[in-house]
Amino acid sequence: MRAEIDLPAVKAEVEAVFRIYEAAIVGNDVATLEALFRDDPRTIRYGAGENLYGMDAIRAFRRGRSPVGLNRDLKDTVITTYGTHFATAMTLFTRSSAPDKIGRQSQTWVRFPDGWRVVAAHVSLIDG
Amino acid sequence: MRAEIDLPAVKAEVEAVFRIYEAAIVGNDVATLEALFRDDPRTIRYGAGENLYGMDAIRAFRRGRSPVGLNRDLKDTVITTYGTHFATAMTLFTRSSAPDKIGRQSQTWVRFPDGWRVVAAHVSLIDG
Repeated sequence: MRAEIDLPAVKAEVEAVFRIYEAAIVGNDVATLEALFRDDPRTIRYGAGENLYGMDAIRAFRRGRSPVGLNRDLKDTVITTYGTHFATAMTLFTRSSAPDKIGRQSQTWVRFPDGWRVVAAHVSLIDG
Repeated sequence: MRAEIDLPAVKAEVEAVFRIYEAAIVGNDVATLEALFRDDPRTIRYGAGENLYGMDAIRAFRRGRSPVGLNRDLKDTVITTYGTHFATAMTLFTRSSAPDKIGRQSQTWVRFPDGWRVVAAHVSLIDG
């Protein structure tokens, strides 16, 4: 690929949307969370306890989610961009409500005409 | 993006490497598994019980892994390509050795001059 990896301008864009997404997670800002996922049946999210295929399933889950205890701290976050339209965002996280667990969140971001969107995500918890 | 999604020729390529990867997983063909991950410090793999940052860590884990009980059945596999150089591969899996668990595997593939490589992967198990 002619794909320059981690072009600074591209990386800055993805870092910015990643921060917006993280604030929306912690604040349970469902509208923002939904807007940052691609509205498409091919969008997939494997959550901590559920497997969601398609944006309809992801929306239904999010709108029914408890807004309690979502606060978390990120660790070892790595965002890598490939060319100008593709990126991965990998991070660990911990919650004070579950101090013995380590969360892992991976996202694949694609830049569409209307902006960067998550097309695939996977969240899981393991023992710390 | 001008990126056509799921161009048949691109999708066929990724499906082919995905099948090679899956055969290597089940057969514990470590050389093939390593060859299909990008050899780079930015390659990240969150495994069922470990968080591996960089190809050196991934290699060390793979070479020390027990080759027993790796057989598995895939379910709800979805490969989606974006343009000609990027793809996601999402699949569930089950193992007869752990019938009460559902595995989830997500991969981000990028096409480099020497072929398609996984740049980010995440594997986790939840109760079925």
